[in-house]
Amino acid sequence: MKHDFSMSLDQAMTTQRAIRRVTDEPIEDALLLEIIHLGTKAPNSMNAQKWEFIIVRDETVKQQLGKMNSGMWKLARPSLAKKAEKDPGFAKVFKATDWGVEHFVDYPAMIVACYKGGRLGWPVLQAASNYGSVFPAIQNMMLAARAVGLGTNLATMPLWNNRKARKILGVPASHTPCVMITLGWPQGGYGPTTRKPVGDVVSLDRYGNRPWQGKEVDEIGG
Amino acid sequence: MKHDFSMSLDQAMTTQRAIRRVTDEPIEDALLLEIIHLGTKAPNSMNAQKWEFIIVRDETVKQQLGKMNSGMWKLARPSLAKKAEKDPGFAKVFKATDWGVEHFVDYPAMIVACYKGGRLGWPVLQAASNYGSVFPAIQNMMLAARAVGLGTNLATMPLWNNRKARKILGVPASHTPCVMITLGWPQGGYGPTTRKPVGDVVSLDRYGNRPWQGKEVDEIGG
Repeated sequence: MKHDFSMSLDQAMTTQRAIRRVTDEPIEDALLLEIIHLGTKAPNSMNAQKWEFIIVRDETVKQQLGKMNSGMWKLARPSLAKKAEKDPGFAKVFKATDWGVEHFVDYPAMIVACYKGGRLGWPVLQAASNYGSVFPAIQNMMLAARAVGLGTNLATMPLWNNRKARKILGVPASHTPCVMITLGWPQGGYGPTTRKPVGDVVSLDRYGNRPWQGKEVDEIGG
Repeated sequence: MKHDFSMSLDQAMTTQRAIRRVTDEPIEDALLLEIIHLGTKAPNSMNAQKWEFIIVRDETVKQQLGKMNSGMWKLARPSLAKKAEKDPGFAKVFKATDWGVEHFVDYPAMIVACYKGGRLGWPVLQAASNYGSVFPAIQNMMLAARAVGLGTNLATMPLWNNRKARKILGVPASHTPCVMITLGWPQGGYGPTTRKPVGDVVSLDRYGNRPWQGKEVDEIGG
């Protein structure tokens, strides 16, 4: 491959964050295809590779997806705005999302991931397997983008109306648009993210049995 | 962190594969917690961190999950066996799955990921966002495990009956078991995986518009 994806795994992971503010510098096709290639290396159910990816650069397609995105955001926004007033940490995420919705069409490229199947949530027993055959590939792509300094942001709102999304993207009934990422060269930088201590989200054997409660990863003996 | 997760991103991704045949060598708690810690660095909707992870080591819990796994496999197996007879590539995946189902309780550790919400597929509009708040973390964990030479395999079958899975794992109605990975030190090695050429799964702007059809990543000019 032509680009350098050799960043160490832990550096890529610990500095990955949603990047919404990007420049208007273009992204070449070859880079996008290398990122998608690394995406397809992700595990997927029975290696059936039930995925298709659409690179979106066309202004009209972006505008149509952007309209769905802002429509959905208008519905979700009021209750989240209240939360943002009380929680300064959340206010940052909220403001950045606002910005991203407003500037949706300005991202130089987007990648839409489609599941090869008519319905993601059906049969119910296979829903996790269906989603699990798409999202690991998407996470690979976001990490690969991070390794070359490209910013990404995961978005599901632009696809919430699957019927419309299918029409905009020309996706046949045999496939289902699932999730998309926006891509662009960051205006700012990548950096560390804020997460709860690992000990607070891990149980042993049964939910709620928390031997490491309150402990950060470096406080846990090896 | 105590373990070395500095493998280059592209090496980790291009050599990641499902590892089902593992040794009985134990995995220390600290390593599992470091892997989960890197999992929690994954992007998730609005950084709400709607996840909980259960490390499973207990024999009884493993047996109960294993029973659900083999029950589901019995249902899926006959039609897949027919496919395996005709497709030698698929036969390998099929045989390995068979082996994994039979030896389920022998994995030294498992990690079950729960979504913080009563139903993953509800509301339907948020289903992709819900699953998308769990699977990127799981993919981070599988890559992190690969970086330290630990084998993983993603499994949804042991959790297909959510009511039973909740009971076995003591998960309250406020959370939903979503997906799990088995972990163990590989009997064999990691290695490259087989995927379609990237040009065959990528469209430009509209589904089916394939400027790179038939092309492998290295045949696409930069």
